[in-house]
Amino acid sequence: MQFTIQRDRFVHDVQNVAKAVSSRTTIPILTGIKIVADHEGVTLTGSDSDVSIETFIPKEDAENEIVTIEQEGSIVLQARFFAEIVKKLPGETIELIVQDQFATTIRSGSSVFNLNGLDPEEYPRLPQLEEDLLFRLPQDMLKNMIRQTVFAVSTQETRPVLTGVNLETEEGELICTATDSHRLAMRKATIERNDEELTFSNVVIPGKSLNELSKIIDDSNELIDVVVTENQILFKFKNLLFFSRLLEGKYPVTKNMIPAQSKTSFTLKTKPFLQTLERALLLSREGKNNVINLKTLDEGLIEITSIQPEVGKVTENIQSEQMQGEDMRISFNGKNIIDALKVIDSEEINIVFTGAMSPFVIRPTDHDHYLHLFSPVRTY
Amino acid sequence: MQFTIQRDRFVHDVQNVAKAVSSRTTIPILTGIKIVADHEGVTLTGSDSDVSIETFIPKEDAENEIVTIEQEGSIVLQARFFAEIVKKLPGETIELIVQDQFATTIRSGSSVFNLNGLDPEEYPRLPQLEEDLLFRLPQDMLKNMIRQTVFAVSTQETRPVLTGVNLETEEGELICTATDSHRLAMRKATIERNDEELTFSNVVIPGKSLNELSKIIDDSNELIDVVVTENQILFKFKNLLFFSRLLEGKYPVTKNMIPAQSKTSFTLKTKPFLQTLERALLLSREGKNNVINLKTLDEGLIEITSIQPEVGKVTENIQSEQMQGEDMRISFNGKNIIDALKVIDSEEINIVFTGAMSPFVIRPTDHDHYLHLFSPVRTY
Repeated sequence: MQFTIQRDRFVHDVQNVAKAVSSRTTIPILTGIKIVADHEGVTLTGSDSDVSIETFIPKEDAENEIVTIEQEGSIVLQARFFAEIVKKLPGETIELIVQDQFATTIRSGSSVFNLNGLDPEEYPRLPQLEEDLLFRLPQDMLKNMIRQTVFAVSTQETRPVLTGVNLETEEGELICTATDSHRLAMRKATIERNDEELTFSNVVIPGKSLNELSKIIDDSNELIDVVVTENQILFKFKNLLFFSRLLEGKYPVTKNMIPAQSKTSFTLKTKPFLQTLERALLLSREGKNNVINLKTLDEGLIEITSIQPEVGKVTENIQSEQMQGEDMRISFNGKNIIDALKVIDSEEINIVFTGAMSPFVIRPTDHDHYLHLFSPVRTY
Repeated sequence: MQFTIQRDRFVHDVQNVAKAVSSRTTIPILTGIKIVADHEGVTLTGSDSDVSIETFIPKEDAENEIVTIEQEGSIVLQARFFAEIVKKLPGETIELIVQDQFATTIRSGSSVFNLNGLDPEEYPRLPQLEEDLLFRLPQDMLKNMIRQTVFAVSTQETRPVLTGVNLETEEGELICTATDSHRLAMRKATIERNDEELTFSNVVIPGKSLNELSKIIDDSNELIDVVVTENQILFKFKNLLFFSRLLEGKYPVTKNMIPAQSKTSFTLKTKPFLQTLERALLLSREGKNNVINLKTLDEGLIEITSIQPEVGKVTENIQSEQMQGEDMRISFNGKNIIDALKVIDSEEINIVFTGAMSPFVIRPTDHDHYLHLFSPVRTY
């Protein structure tokens, strides 16, 4: 194999596929990045067997030559070194030559690296997916959906299915749900389907995969194709393929958890409420339980308190709007509410309580694309 | 005690004194910040017994009122909470009230914190230094002197005196030296003395203290007063006092270590040389010894190589200027050279070798304010 490639484009794509590579893998060949040069261009692949990323760099792009292929071929190079090396190379182009025994030479400017490559035949093949079930959504919307749900997945492996975000369709909408059984984040979005009949449920993507995907996709409104199969999901955009395995197991039915009635409800400005909770958390996080107390006072005033006996106490009164229903006294994990308020882009939120010992719901006031559900904490 | 103070100014000064406070102290009162309000203003103190920082906030500053003192007094508040709390308070002013039993109330905007304070009488007194030996230098120069030496101090406690930077005067100049016995950084500067007779030597400031000091001083050319005593050093600027204890023990005489003769010498562009070494280090740091090899070739060419048998090899040729003397082959700890090149602000450096097994010197070509000395590494 021998080719010469534009450094910046190569660095960009190598960094992208390197995101899938884990140094902790038990499969030695997966510590590498696979590089294939053929008559169309250069293909790079990285994988940790949960997530696989493949990118293609065409020979030409909008009349600019990107790659010159002198000889087709393939090689696997240690990702840890290779990704660092290409980033630091001094020239505007990089020449990559593979000789006998996978001996690889990388030249750029005054720099010559001789690296021991690995046998590309050993590299596992990526899954070939049937692209029957396909839907489309803009990159920025997907990025937001990930941001607004993935923080709520469980970090505990006791119920593995809860470490993922669940995808399902309902009346032409995509619904993403994450829960660690103490809090739940739900986000809806309209998607474009290739077939009106396309429906699915219990498609659970590992939170870790979505975090990696989120780092790669742009804030643009270009469309991403999403292909769903039995145990894999594929995101396709530009010249990049992002595969993730799906989590096994039955995702809990969450629809019935969301209370329909209300005992007490009011509206608050998102940002000041967030800041008040952050101040209260300064004391309560010390006790490691993050407990913050909320109490309704007269005339729509809300009292937020938290106590850490050894350190002290904080009290703050904030003004709510549209107060309805009974007086309420409730305690909750303040960190969970803060996480949710941070991803709510709306200026105002509505809180609906159903009792001091029952779950409560936070929704933006200006649309119903998402909601956050929380269990209260017993403090006696 | 009761006073009302402008939030931004108070936050700024609390963050500064908090830098001296360590949560790992064995003296409970030192986990706190001492606050004293008297008729002139508010004084804040933080200390970990090695470093102590005191700042003073006057009642007025250039006709603006900063503090209103309603009642004089003092208190000690847990630095970890207090520094975080003031930073997050919502109002433009902060009211601080101390009642019985050191119960402290902090009010700002809608927020009320009740904190358990500590007895200010228990807080140790800062040293009272005789200000006989005093010199002055601009803040930005001191910041540069710290940056250009402190990285070379030893991190090992086997020879405690080497964990500090040594200060001495010589012919009206201040000389700062740091060495871990494998490399040495030396920086000279002209200082302003209150007495022509002022001389000192073996004033060894812990590297850790200098790193903290560096975070507090500005890039301005305002003068700092420095007071040196037997076992303490004091830096005075604006309304801030920074005390550090000095290290005990005899600092090695380093002057004789710097070779006067030359077997081989040449000049290199600083930045390209740094980048070449950084690429070579990508492989050699893997072996944990950071060994990089340098070899002179014909016509002023320098070959830089590093080998990591399991991974590969890197070779790079760079062009030197003003090559003089014998051919040279030497190996060194590349990380040490990189550290030094990063703090050299000059465009070109001159390297002087005295043999493959003898120390070598790097100096900027445009002035003699600093030099860096390195031991080679045996590779056979």
